[in-house]
Amino acid sequence: MAKELKEMTNRAENYSQWYNDLVVKADLAEQSAVRGCMVIKPYGYAIWEKMQRVLDDMFKQTGVQNAYFPLLIPKSFLCKEAEHVEGFAKECAVVTHYRLKNNPNGTGVVVDPEARLEEELIVRPTSETIIWNTYKNWIHSWRDLPLLCNQWCNVMRWEMRTRLFLRTSEFLWQEGHTAHATSEEAAAKAMEMINVYANFAEKWMAVPVIKGPKSPNERFAGAVDTFTIEAMMQDGKALQAGTSHFLGQNFAKAFDVTYVNKENKEEYVWATSWGVSTRLMGALIMTHSDDNGLVLPPKLAPIQVVIVPIYKKPEELDAINAKVDVWTAALREKGISVKYDNADNKKPGWKFAEYELKGIPVRLALGSRDMENNTIEVMRRDTLEKETVSQDGIVEYVEKLLVEIQQNIFEKAKTMRNNFIRRVDTWDEFKVEIEKGGFLLCHWDGTTETEERIKEETKATIRCIPFEPITDDDLKPGVDMLTGKPSARRVLFARSY
Amino acid sequence: MAKELKEMTNRAENYSQWYNDLVVKADLAEQSAVRGCMVIKPYGYAIWEKMQRVLDDMFKQTGVQNAYFPLLIPKSFLCKEAEHVEGFAKECAVVTHYRLKNNPNGTGVVVDPEARLEEELIVRPTSETIIWNTYKNWIHSWRDLPLLCNQWCNVMRWEMRTRLFLRTSEFLWQEGHTAHATSEEAAAKAMEMINVYANFAEKWMAVPVIKGPKSPNERFAGAVDTFTIEAMMQDGKALQAGTSHFLGQNFAKAFDVTYVNKENKEEYVWATSWGVSTRLMGALIMTHSDDNGLVLPPKLAPIQVVIVPIYKKPEELDAINAKVDVWTAALREKGISVKYDNADNKKPGWKFAEYELKGIPVRLALGSRDMENNTIEVMRRDTLEKETVSQDGIVEYVEKLLVEIQQNIFEKAKTMRNNFIRRVDTWDEFKVEIEKGGFLLCHWDGTTETEERIKEETKATIRCIPFEPITDDDLKPGVDMLTGKPSARRVLFARSY
Repeated sequence: MAKELKEMTNRAENYSQWYNDLVVKADLAEQSAVRGCMVIKPYGYAIWEKMQRVLDDMFKQTGVQNAYFPLLIPKSFLCKEAEHVEGFAKECAVVTHYRLKNNPNGTGVVVDPEARLEEELIVRPTSETIIWNTYKNWIHSWRDLPLLCNQWCNVMRWEMRTRLFLRTSEFLWQEGHTAHATSEEAAAKAMEMINVYANFAEKWMAVPVIKGPKSPNERFAGAVDTFTIEAMMQDGKALQAGTSHFLGQNFAKAFDVTYVNKENKEEYVWATSWGVSTRLMGALIMTHSDDNGLVLPPKLAPIQVVIVPIYKKPEELDAINAKVDVWTAALREKGISVKYDNADNKKPGWKFAEYELKGIPVRLALGSRDMENNTIEVMRRDTLEKETVSQDGIVEYVEKLLVEIQQNIFEKAKTMRNNFIRRVDTWDEFKVEIEKGGFLLCHWDGTTETEERIKEETKATIRCIPFEPITDDDLKPGVDMLTGKPSARRVLFARSY
Repeated sequence: MAKELKEMTNRAENYSQWYNDLVVKADLAEQSAVRGCMVIKPYGYAIWEKMQRVLDDMFKQTGVQNAYFPLLIPKSFLCKEAEHVEGFAKECAVVTHYRLKNNPNGTGVVVDPEARLEEELIVRPTSETIIWNTYKNWIHSWRDLPLLCNQWCNVMRWEMRTRLFLRTSEFLWQEGHTAHATSEEAAAKAMEMINVYANFAEKWMAVPVIKGPKSPNERFAGAVDTFTIEAMMQDGKALQAGTSHFLGQNFAKAFDVTYVNKENKEEYVWATSWGVSTRLMGALIMTHSDDNGLVLPPKLAPIQVVIVPIYKKPEELDAINAKVDVWTAALREKGISVKYDNADNKKPGWKFAEYELKGIPVRLALGSRDMENNTIEVMRRDTLEKETVSQDGIVEYVEKLLVEIQQNIFEKAKTMRNNFIRRVDTWDEFKVEIEKGGFLLCHWDGTTETEERIKEETKATIRCIPFEPITDDDLKPGVDMLTGKPSARRVLFARSY
């Protein structure tokens, strides 16, 4: 392991390579044999499962129910909403046949040309179309509204350049799709869900985020408004961590979904959709981890505490085992997940490096001298600080420490993120500052044209128009840094993942 | 609702139609716009989620971890195991292109012929091939074994005749894939998992099952041995509810997965795979339900108790609400899920029919007279019996009743199933008896040829060779009912879903 760690690139050296190395070495995920599709390994999946469980409970508390809709979407459905098809057509995996047959030349199997589908089917890149086609039959009257469904599933977008978790051709996500009687109610739902995401990101992932609408150019294909949560990675690049869309009546009109209101009049339904994906894993990893490996927030760590015995003779281990058994039981009683690693085929030093790499928040080490002195060594992963404390009350000590670590890594991430936020007023300054990374608060004239010029020249995009001003000056009018045209307020620029 | 209920076919009239009606009317699932693919509606999905949660915990207790492998499988992978490709090639959805483009004639989009994949990708019908191709890189030494992974995902098998939950082109399932150092260990794992499935079916679904290996002809494509759990539906047809396969070294050899053993020798790895799917929903529905609708075992019911107030004046409702609030809190405290339906836009009679249709195990009704008399009406869904009991201790009463219902529907299903088991010794008798449905215990000469003749003439197949003899005579030798050749023991025949 020491050897493997050495092979891991430093962040300062090459951040991108550091990320790739970390994802693979910490056993989170790897590339599969299928171009752009990843294998999520058990340790990575265990973190994703924890995220899922928490988010799922949060959704259910807002009245959302889970359901499941088909993987494959008829090509014609995709075409019913003009912007939607424009947004997704270029990255669709297409099923054209439903059977293989033996190769007439005797080797292997080939696609059976006689089993060609009448209409091609698309592997869902997102499910608005198939879901709204289904909702048509579920919604008749105002009594059927609101309709609040979510599904956890896989989706596919054929990406040309892929990176584990951040951008893969297949990814796992949840997509919520809601139907409402009024525009106000739908807009409020879209807002409610972006708040759920922000709450999850900050309270559970310990990742601070900035909330706000996207500029029209960066909206979801088919949305009237897209709200986003934007996080800042250690290399100064922003990461869009979740989006919630107010879809207006676009999909209701495309799929002819109407309801009879209380006044007995037929109206089109109002919609939202919202999703987060395995991309969150990328945000989690890149926000907190360091050159020693992963740093996980205790609330999402599959193993929160690891205990390693240090001994020479088997009798010593027996005594340590007996002590540790009591603690593990007490920790589990408190809902803390703990692993006791007394395997004898690996040395303590190897174990320490391994658990640092895996980001276990707290490591306890118990040696024979500790047994004599009634002490125990506690190492916290976030600061790598070691402390020798009394065994008395160690369970409560660990419990408090986990809360402290959760808080500390959030504060640390927030400080990092805040240090990356600057106000920039001139185009020359912008071009210099954007090279240093981070969020730049700038005036913008509100046009897509200007936004695209900026993107072309600097690769920076408007990440969002923050709901809450970040500095006192944000809401004051000014002039666009590039065009000199009037600007109502500052918006948030960054290069991004 | 009364009207809708009338529209539901009786079991005696047309069992198959009754099932279809029930699945749709109880809001469990429906056909989607995509041929053979279903939409699982929120109420159906809530039951599936409960099943998932329980099974997932059971798997984890055996040391299994979850992971995720790609949806798409290169065609060449499927071909590496000869029996495997033979078994699945004819029902594969094939991805041939990765992009759409605007139709040159200006209408809609078409598949972009320039975006043809070099090698076609198959939507996974099962994942042995992609997983064993991955395991190759994970397994080097005996220290890496056993490797125990499971994934919850969607799979696709292009079925020509589909039925909701029972046989759909896309379905949800879990598939476990384990790798072991020895044949014995792998065989034991396959056995362990079929026992987990049997335990889940009987203890949670209240569905009695018969365990045993399949005949060679009915084995999974690529397996050395397939163990199954077989349930009996009310119409006398068997349903295969779960399978666990001992794969020998077939996939290890096909994908060249070897490990270095403790003696430093290279050996092929031994494998198992095992799965249950949304088909379990079909088994659950068909085993217990009746002409009034769904009957759910309390342990898997999303709502275990529903409370309906019966009142005329608003003040009466206020008093009832106050009482019920105390009970719902107390029931939830005990982990019992309860719904209080005091909506005023539907009459109690409508609600009663609705909750019977949905299979809520216990219904409590509380009227003004009950309030005066300190009583409450309790209706149990399994027997439809009503009882008026004291309000004192109602929470404990309901708690006990749920346990009793779980037990009762299992016993009822077991009696039904046992009544369907007969021993048959002659071919003439077999042809008559098989028309009456049920399991027939018969002598068989052990050849695939005889098995196929029986299937051709009667549509009956060998469901399994029960591990535990069902009657005292099962293990005594005899003669094949059709060929007169010697038979070592009786095996279990039935027509099946």
